[in-house]
Amino acid sequence: MKILITGGAGFLGARLARALLAKGTLAGRSIAQLVLADQVAAPADLCADARVQARTGPLLAACEALREEAFDGVFHLASAVSGECETDFDLGLRSNLDSTRALLDALRYRTGQGSPATRLVFSSSIAVFGPDAAVPLPPVVGDDTLATPQTSYGTHKLICEHLVADYTRKGYIDGRAARLMTVTVRPGRPNGAASSFFSGIIREPLAGQEAVCPVPADTAHPVSSPQRTVQGLIAVYEASREAFGGRTALNLPGLNITVQQMLDALARVAGPAVRARVRFEPDARIAGIVGNWPRAATARRAAALGLQPEASFDDIIRQYIADSAGAPGALQGMAA
Amino acid sequence: MKILITGGAGFLGARLARALLAKGTLAGRSIAQLVLADQVAAPADLCADARVQARTGPLLAACEALREEAFDGVFHLASAVSGECETDFDLGLRSNLDSTRALLDALRYRTGQGSPATRLVFSSSIAVFGPDAAVPLPPVVGDDTLATPQTSYGTHKLICEHLVADYTRKGYIDGRAARLMTVTVRPGRPNGAASSFFSGIIREPLAGQEAVCPVPADTAHPVSSPQRTVQGLIAVYEASREAFGGRTALNLPGLNITVQQMLDALARVAGPAVRARVRFEPDARIAGIVGNWPRAATARRAAALGLQPEASFDDIIRQYIADSAGAPGALQGMAA
Repeated sequence: MKILITGGAGFLGARLARALLAKGTLAGRSIAQLVLADQVAAPADLCADARVQARTGPLLAACEALREEAFDGVFHLASAVSGECETDFDLGLRSNLDSTRALLDALRYRTGQGSPATRLVFSSSIAVFGPDAAVPLPPVVGDDTLATPQTSYGTHKLICEHLVADYTRKGYIDGRAARLMTVTVRPGRPNGAASSFFSGIIREPLAGQEAVCPVPADTAHPVSSPQRTVQGLIAVYEASREAFGGRTALNLPGLNITVQQMLDALARVAGPAVRARVRFEPDARIAGIVGNWPRAATARRAAALGLQPEASFDDIIRQYIADSAGAPGALQGMAA
Repeated sequence: MKILITGGAGFLGARLARALLAKGTLAGRSIAQLVLADQVAAPADLCADARVQARTGPLLAACEALREEAFDGVFHLASAVSGECETDFDLGLRSNLDSTRALLDALRYRTGQGSPATRLVFSSSIAVFGPDAAVPLPPVVGDDTLATPQTSYGTHKLICEHLVADYTRKGYIDGRAARLMTVTVRPGRPNGAASSFFSGIIREPLAGQEAVCPVPADTAHPVSSPQRTVQGLIAVYEASREAFGGRTALNLPGLNITVQQMLDALARVAGPAVRARVRFEPDARIAGIVGNWPRAATARRAAALGLQPEASFDDIIRQYIADSAGAPGALQGMAA
């Protein structure tokens, strides 16, 4: 079978690609070809796999050609992120709405030509949730909590959830939307997103660097590891339509945790000296943004698919440490 | 002030135009010019008013020019209807999504040039609500009921609600989305929509014709008269942002009623001989569609703006009779 991953060279896309290549099959069929479409070049290890074809360029321009190419399945991860959408409104509309619409229309064109409906997993986000003046945010957001997004990014994700549902209802695709929790620990540098500290307060101390936490220690939020997130996307792909249940989006599992609990886990896993590199320095702007985010989430439908959050944040830190073993400078300050 | 009504020559648009011209002001300012944009020609009585300018043609093509034209307010009613969207998917996308996006972007362009944010009322619909396999429809839908549309029309309306909210959040427009209940009694001919009988079982008997009711007598649904619906749109326009409350859509008031109660009202208002022209002939296809619609609605936020549903369906029938007094053949079978 032939699979397309949009955003396939990115943080999650590349991990999803590696997981699929290692697994070798998807929904019981052998993966013969894996196309990674992204604006940036794919990592070398992926390009070295004979099954991988990397395509670099804007997705929107590529969608017209997709009408002439058969895919058995699509993971649609490509997206402008939250901060980009806030600073460049047109970029957000183009990258998140127009590209998704063009992708869906390319797949619809193929069913119009007699092809079976392509299975598509759309990566939505917990960013669809937020408090509106008329609709307070509940303490815990579930699959069926009313979504009233407070960012353009969240708005686009919610709109695409509904497009995926309607194209599915019409039989043009077999679409499933899954809302990702905040993924941590992300490698690399701080990216300026308001959520950046959720990774920074773990990643920087492990690299021997000081880190600043801009929000109070009792700040709560649902998080997930890259590994569990990728597992969730694959499970949503492999589920039968009946098991997926309905056409609305589901929440992927999140570990509901406070910043204090994250730092306690860091001390347990890496030692108190590493933990001591994090200091609290309140930032009213960031605290204000984060204060509008869900403090906890449930994932009832994902649980019915056998998906569970990590048992502890300790496991998430250990996963990051294992993943970073070969990365220069990533682990410089841990106790021997 | 200068006002634009998209869909301004249609059933509701023309009634809104007449109400605005009779009122003479909107939000305390005198209406100097009223532009009616529609694909069909505007009624003669409206064209005869010196304040009215009728423009005929597709909205999408007109939006580029709207960048160069200042409007103080917009009522955006233009839309392909439910049945059209189901039979022509591209028409629905173009008429409901692309046109709304182009309109919003034209208004955004103007704020980018330094103009104040244009106030815009978007006519959404109770069609945003429906049962999904994962989310049953509650017995009563409120402002903040989770919307999981089961038609392309409902999907487009919900998507546009969220676009209006996000453009408003960014300060590009001052947008308010109001969900219309099923409007009855519509004049004219049956239009093939599944909801057509809600008007037909009143309109046809009053015109001396037999009518068929395709659903059981205990079928319940929230309805509203054209007059109350137009009043609702105007009140939503005139509300302060604080009074409107939030950026999410609100429900306009609906009279929650059963088909049996509608027919009882017909007998009271027009006599038992008129009522006797309606017979029940179950249509499984239509009953199946209507069975997925909300059986009742509340309108808490609209009530806070002073909006109430009609006190009785008798009033709605009397309103239709008064409106139809001059229409040939509309009232042919009433008891003297």
